[in-house]
Amino acid sequence: MSGAVPPLPDSTLAVSLGDPAGIGPEVIAKCWDNRSAFGLPPFVAIGDGNSLAAVWDGPITVVDDPGEVDSAFDVGLPLLQVPAAQADRPGHPSVAGAHCSLDSLELAVGLARSGSVAAVVTGPVAKEQLYGIGFQHPGQTEFVAERCGVAPGNVAMMLAGPSLRTTPVTTHLALADVPDRLTTALIESRGRTVLRGLQRNFGIAEPRLAIAALNPHAGEGGQLGREEIEIIGPAIAALAAEGWRVSGPHPADTMFHPRARANYDAALCMYHDQALIPIKALHFEDAVNVTLGLPIVRTAPDHGTAFNIAGQDLADPRPMAAAIRMAAECAVLRTEMV
Amino acid sequence: MSGAVPPLPDSTLAVSLGDPAGIGPEVIAKCWDNRSAFGLPPFVAIGDGNSLAAVWDGPITVVDDPGEVDSAFDVGLPLLQVPAAQADRPGHPSVAGAHCSLDSLELAVGLARSGSVAAVVTGPVAKEQLYGIGFQHPGQTEFVAERCGVAPGNVAMMLAGPSLRTTPVTTHLALADVPDRLTTALIESRGRTVLRGLQRNFGIAEPRLAIAALNPHAGEGGQLGREEIEIIGPAIAALAAEGWRVSGPHPADTMFHPRARANYDAALCMYHDQALIPIKALHFEDAVNVTLGLPIVRTAPDHGTAFNIAGQDLADPRPMAAAIRMAAECAVLRTEMV
Repeated sequence: MSGAVPPLPDSTLAVSLGDPAGIGPEVIAKCWDNRSAFGLPPFVAIGDGNSLAAVWDGPITVVDDPGEVDSAFDVGLPLLQVPAAQADRPGHPSVAGAHCSLDSLELAVGLARSGSVAAVVTGPVAKEQLYGIGFQHPGQTEFVAERCGVAPGNVAMMLAGPSLRTTPVTTHLALADVPDRLTTALIESRGRTVLRGLQRNFGIAEPRLAIAALNPHAGEGGQLGREEIEIIGPAIAALAAEGWRVSGPHPADTMFHPRARANYDAALCMYHDQALIPIKALHFEDAVNVTLGLPIVRTAPDHGTAFNIAGQDLADPRPMAAAIRMAAECAVLRTEMV
Repeated sequence: MSGAVPPLPDSTLAVSLGDPAGIGPEVIAKCWDNRSAFGLPPFVAIGDGNSLAAVWDGPITVVDDPGEVDSAFDVGLPLLQVPAAQADRPGHPSVAGAHCSLDSLELAVGLARSGSVAAVVTGPVAKEQLYGIGFQHPGQTEFVAERCGVAPGNVAMMLAGPSLRTTPVTTHLALADVPDRLTTALIESRGRTVLRGLQRNFGIAEPRLAIAALNPHAGEGGQLGREEIEIIGPAIAALAAEGWRVSGPHPADTMFHPRARANYDAALCMYHDQALIPIKALHFEDAVNVTLGLPIVRTAPDHGTAFNIAGQDLADPRPMAAAIRMAAECAVLRTEMV
């Protein structure tokens, strides 16, 4: 990871701590500790200060407004307090902690919507606890979309690393259900979201999208499955007819080597592991989850609460640092496009 | 690729040229040209000399017996002639060329079976032309298995690179057909073939096999598919009960980063792209196709005839060089195990 500080956005970044008992507070504190080495811009943590103090003895500067962050950032980790009803021990999540993580997320999104922060970075939450308090969404992404007034079908998850960006068309469903779920309309819609996201979040004026096949060898002309001919091909044709630079369906196994990656700005994949195997094989420590299709910039590290290692000083802060850096970069590019 | 010559096997290696109109002759000739830089042991090409002369003006030393190769190798590319009935132009395959490629393959395998060569490396053939002359097998692998008296179900294709080895349980079928094709017995059988192959071809006394899940997040306890619980888990338990070091089912997206790869010697994957996406993302130029379960050592580069670039001096010889090197290494390890 380069230590060069990228161009700064106009305002600070909001980083929600996530579940107080997870590794979110630890990796965010470590990001502040290593802010120079990681090349991080000023940011404000949002959540319960006790969860930071439980795993870290560094200085915390409580602020009331994101506008105070820039001057406070070098003195201590700026914190917008969202107190939890009880102080969880690391690794021991609670209903109170789930409430706190959701309130923190909501505040972060609200600040971004109002323009008080330039972007939102979200720490990992515990879905099981959230479901216990009535949370209805598959994950934070859908919650953020709803708070931004965007239908969940119009946002897309991108995993972005230094040399590869991928987005899955379908996400959390059994592999056997993938072929039935794929439709030409769905692939077109996700493709458009990704292409616009490459323009909006990454400043690529004429983005190139490579679309993966579902079947091995791209179906070998129908011998190994007909989805390429009947479903994926027509979606590619429709996007091309709109003027987008799209290619495919590409055999997925030959899409991700260095020379192939040089030919596109993002890969649209048909299912979860097709998108996540290559990005994690190549960029495990610095792949960032970026939500496309939102009116705000939102990124997240691609890991969970890791309750099993919370509070043991074992958590790697590099994915969170990459998420903060990318949020700043996207925020700058957005500002420039306005 | 290291230029160090590995320990030499007791006898030379046979390298079949593959289809005379494909890139096989060119990459094999380039391997001889660069034999020192690539660290290659002596080998004998098997096929039609005209196909070499059509794309290469280097010296050819026709031999009658593999025993002559060692002394001839530094003078010219040793060749065991299998004349084609007509001289094809590069990029223009013919029935005569298909016959020649099959005869060359058969001779190479026969020499390995008789012990006259230490291993077989196969150049790429054109299946469409082979089907035209009555070839009944899905590919060279099954043909080699039959000539060695091994049922096709008892061999397994491994893709082996410097930091990762993968084998798919199912290969060339539509993704929608994968879940139905997977059985506990099939996974057990492939697992055993891979584990024995790691012992026999790679000299690993107590091999560690990581077995992939089919579904995202390994099915999340049955929420995203039940194959992990009903099919894959029992196969892992059965292999473990036999004393093998097996682990899984692992979520496929977190199996292939460097720290994860350090925990196993090979990954057993459930379908074609699950195995081939990571190996080609990481090792596109030096992944080698190794057939496990045979009484002989057989390797191949993981590319096809590439008729579209044949005869244009564009073909990259590094995958063929990696296949020749790995054949020699496996042959030495086999000899040592006897």
